[in-house]
Amino acid sequence: MRVSQLLGERYKERAFEIESQNLMTRGGYIKQVGNGIYSLFTPAKRIARKIENILREEMDAIGGQEVLFPVAMPATIWQQSGRFDSIGSELLRFKDRSGADMVLGMTHEEAAVQLATNVAGTYQKFPFMIYQIQTKFRDEPRARGGLIRVREFTMKDAYSFHTSYEDLQQYYEQCYKAYERIFARCGVPEVIAVKSDPGMMGGKISHEFMLLTGIGEDTLVICPQCGYRANMEAADCIVHEHLDAEEKPLELVETYQNKTIEEVATFLNVSMDRLLKAVVYQRNEDDSYVVVFIRGDIEVNETKLRNYLKAEVHPAVELDACDLCAGSIGPVDLHTKATVLFDKTLQSRNNYVCGANRDGFHRTGLNLTRDIGKVDFIDVGKATDGGVCPSCGKHSITIKNGIEVGNIFQLGTRYTEAMGMQYDAADGSRQYPIMGCYGIGVGRLMASVCEAKHDDYGPIWPMAIAPWQVHICALRADDPQVKDKAETLYSELNRLGVEVIIDDRTVSAGFMFSDADLLGVPLRVIISPKTLARNAFELISRDKTVKQDLAIEGAAAALRDMVMERM
Amino acid sequence: MRVSQLLGERYKERAFEIESQNLMTRGGYIKQVGNGIYSLFTPAKRIARKIENILREEMDAIGGQEVLFPVAMPATIWQQSGRFDSIGSELLRFKDRSGADMVLGMTHEEAAVQLATNVAGTYQKFPFMIYQIQTKFRDEPRARGGLIRVREFTMKDAYSFHTSYEDLQQYYEQCYKAYERIFARCGVPEVIAVKSDPGMMGGKISHEFMLLTGIGEDTLVICPQCGYRANMEAADCIVHEHLDAEEKPLELVETYQNKTIEEVATFLNVSMDRLLKAVVYQRNEDDSYVVVFIRGDIEVNETKLRNYLKAEVHPAVELDACDLCAGSIGPVDLHTKATVLFDKTLQSRNNYVCGANRDGFHRTGLNLTRDIGKVDFIDVGKATDGGVCPSCGKHSITIKNGIEVGNIFQLGTRYTEAMGMQYDAADGSRQYPIMGCYGIGVGRLMASVCEAKHDDYGPIWPMAIAPWQVHICALRADDPQVKDKAETLYSELNRLGVEVIIDDRTVSAGFMFSDADLLGVPLRVIISPKTLARNAFELISRDKTVKQDLAIEGAAAALRDMVMERM
Repeated sequence: MRVSQLLGERYKERAFEIESQNLMTRGGYIKQVGNGIYSLFTPAKRIARKIENILREEMDAIGGQEVLFPVAMPATIWQQSGRFDSIGSELLRFKDRSGADMVLGMTHEEAAVQLATNVAGTYQKFPFMIYQIQTKFRDEPRARGGLIRVREFTMKDAYSFHTSYEDLQQYYEQCYKAYERIFARCGVPEVIAVKSDPGMMGGKISHEFMLLTGIGEDTLVICPQCGYRANMEAADCIVHEHLDAEEKPLELVETYQNKTIEEVATFLNVSMDRLLKAVVYQRNEDDSYVVVFIRGDIEVNETKLRNYLKAEVHPAVELDACDLCAGSIGPVDLHTKATVLFDKTLQSRNNYVCGANRDGFHRTGLNLTRDIGKVDFIDVGKATDGGVCPSCGKHSITIKNGIEVGNIFQLGTRYTEAMGMQYDAADGSRQYPIMGCYGIGVGRLMASVCEAKHDDYGPIWPMAIAPWQVHICALRADDPQVKDKAETLYSELNRLGVEVIIDDRTVSAGFMFSDADLLGVPLRVIISPKTLARNAFELISRDKTVKQDLAIEGAAAALRDMVMERM
Repeated sequence: MRVSQLLGERYKERAFEIESQNLMTRGGYIKQVGNGIYSLFTPAKRIARKIENILREEMDAIGGQEVLFPVAMPATIWQQSGRFDSIGSELLRFKDRSGADMVLGMTHEEAAVQLATNVAGTYQKFPFMIYQIQTKFRDEPRARGGLIRVREFTMKDAYSFHTSYEDLQQYYEQCYKAYERIFARCGVPEVIAVKSDPGMMGGKISHEFMLLTGIGEDTLVICPQCGYRANMEAADCIVHEHLDAEEKPLELVETYQNKTIEEVATFLNVSMDRLLKAVVYQRNEDDSYVVVFIRGDIEVNETKLRNYLKAEVHPAVELDACDLCAGSIGPVDLHTKATVLFDKTLQSRNNYVCGANRDGFHRTGLNLTRDIGKVDFIDVGKATDGGVCPSCGKHSITIKNGIEVGNIFQLGTRYTEAMGMQYDAADGSRQYPIMGCYGIGVGRLMASVCEAKHDDYGPIWPMAIAPWQVHICALRADDPQVKDKAETLYSELNRLGVEVIIDDRTVSAGFMFSDADLLGVPLRVIISPKTLARNAFELISRDKTVKQDLAIEGAAAALRDMVMERM
């Protein structure tokens, strides 16, 4: 490829906050077509293909069979699984010319079960894994960050089928290791797996693979001491117990206009963790109320709350109309139709300050079991930075941001049961296969690598996924000797199977180098009258670790060897 | 790969009329998900990937830059080109969650222009070609034949941009030759190019690449004498001139109940080509009438009629309400608001029989110029088998059916003008680039190869696109010696990079061979106690041209060489 012919333009203006979006736009990798919808120029398409090949090799290595599911699917199979109704507007629904309901695939569990039904009739066929690399559409309300969060994306999605949970667990671990190899091969071995919330996928066990970065939208709970790692959505919230030696009596105190946790804590001169606070939600389906009592210094983890309630909820917007006394809700003498829940962090203290269900008043000296009887505590608290690790018990929790670059789920029989896929077990009975599923978004991984591997001037692509391996800068291409040497090296590298791009434009060195920085090719060879005067090419690696002369004789072979070393 | 693990089942029951659909369904290649929507099992996905690689290599070889356009696009760019309104319901339109109009891409001219706009600002960047291999959706009313005519399909679509028509023509010819190489490499060198009608794509010159087969939906006009080839939609209709020496007078004759061409010809005892017939259409937009006068033995080519009228038409459904005398429409004394057209085949004769615009009567001795004055003849006739070749003038036209497996179009500036893409020309002026576009459907090509290359037992895949290259049948895999030799060969072939599938099931030879026939792998190696007794493997080619013993020693290397020879 020649830079002079490469479609796309590179420029200097910073246009976006997120650096990968900025560099990939400025570098001529991507162009927005619509909200969360991009076209890829050739450099990005080449990176994507290399990532896809790595995905394919690693999926094949764990016995995967590549298949292809449709992008547009009849709604019928999504109705069978129940997700046509249960998923919100991120599932894009439409009608075809005959008026039939259709969806654009945002994931393909239904299609995988549809494909495997009736063609894996007996236990001997199991386990098996099928995967595809295909376009998906998810009608994201918050597309952002270039390819980081888009509506249309290319994804590798894999589906495994098993006859026992032990077999699923074993395969799940194999896939977990394949994912570690994939991220290492793509140049981001620092990606970590965290325990996650399965969400709309169903199932019990799942992990997300996260690249830690400040721009990540996921909040991760990490213990550097013991290695505990979980998505905030799935992290246990642990607090240490600090009971006062003596239980105080329950007393009513006037608190005037002080309503918020902060106001009450200041007014009564107690720390926030000595308050029992009420957080009020409403169920989306019928607007019914849910009161969560939780320790004053702990936030409610809404994902855990949703999972407990098995319902979508939103923070209550209107308390006037209900039977709750806003600003003073407390568990004693609470007469309400709302669902009332107690977070387990409340067990850590006694003698709480709480609402009195009476405007302008609170209570002190609340001791839950004594004052309201037996309480069922549940876990809906949010882990906090410096909090207690649920695994090792130390005050070692760190909160980090991460981009989710992959995920793996143990789905169980949710889909096979719903869609009626069965097989003949060894004992002659009819059974539902147990499924796992495993996803990696190609574009997001590419953008994440850019986010992790760049400097101020452009991406620093790892060799295995770089758009080209060697970038020849022919400075003063109008000099016949430069032109001759550059073109000879270009042909030789092509002949040796090295992926090479040559900049043969008659532009300034500064212009040429800033373009090369934006293309991020790992090895750069500079050929100029100056280097030729010392009978050499100059070799510079994009990551700045190498800067040396390269003998003209044998340069192509030497470069090929360097490429191989870095793969 | 092992047949025992391959997902999919093969079976004997014929389910479909079209043989490729039948074999690809029975052979475990495809599974229908919805009307015109299929999932691909691994064998089909492997064939598709090989076809895609051939497409990629040939597009790269003519300077193509691989990019990726979105499947789901905002309607805005289709509104810019005007096609959001001009294309019918085969363009799938929907609204996203924000209510914005969207389309599913059935072709990507708009996306190509959107991508190239502002990044090819001066003439130096031209010419260039960008292409993608991506999923498309076309809401076909008549999905049929498995992958032959589907609604969702994978397509290679390429778009070239030029600064002159000469440059486009030159590139068009390059692409034409690349297409010939592609079809030859995919094992169907017999694919021919025919002149075609550009239809909704716009532009003037276009060709379709056709595989001749009885199941093809396209009708082709071919002259074996001179090589003239056109789609019926685009074929000139030529008839030889047979004027009577003497012009007869125009006379009114009573024809009673005889109304159809056949009835009138029989009643008056003349051949059909001596009749002038009227065919009546209505414009879709306003139901206004169009009368086409044409020679009695020639059919109207509706595509040519539409192109002439620049309007969609349908055969008239109701003549009672209009000012035409059904069963007796003729050009003399015709008083009508309808558009009246004369096909040029009418020039070939004189003394016609025609309608008299009076129930129960016709006229004889019609001589058009004499009786109604100057006539503008147009070409809307359909070529006929045995008709006159428009190129060499011989009575040599043959009508054949074909499947369109590719097409190339000279688009001109239709899209760049509509979407406002311009560049600085060498003379400093602003110009619209001139485009070409070039498509090949991957799935349809795969099914077409199957249609062209099969026997009663299954597909006979050409080596270059076969799902695997060598198929090992281990007959009596329970025999330790058979198992050992088969597994050794399997490992060696894998090590040599040969794509091999092994059938290690303990099933009967008949069962195993019929599965192998359906998988259609070019080289089959049979290993059984019988072959081992004569210290050999048996080699059979799927196309039955080779059946010989293969020495066990060196078998893997010999097979590798045979694979290479056949690529």
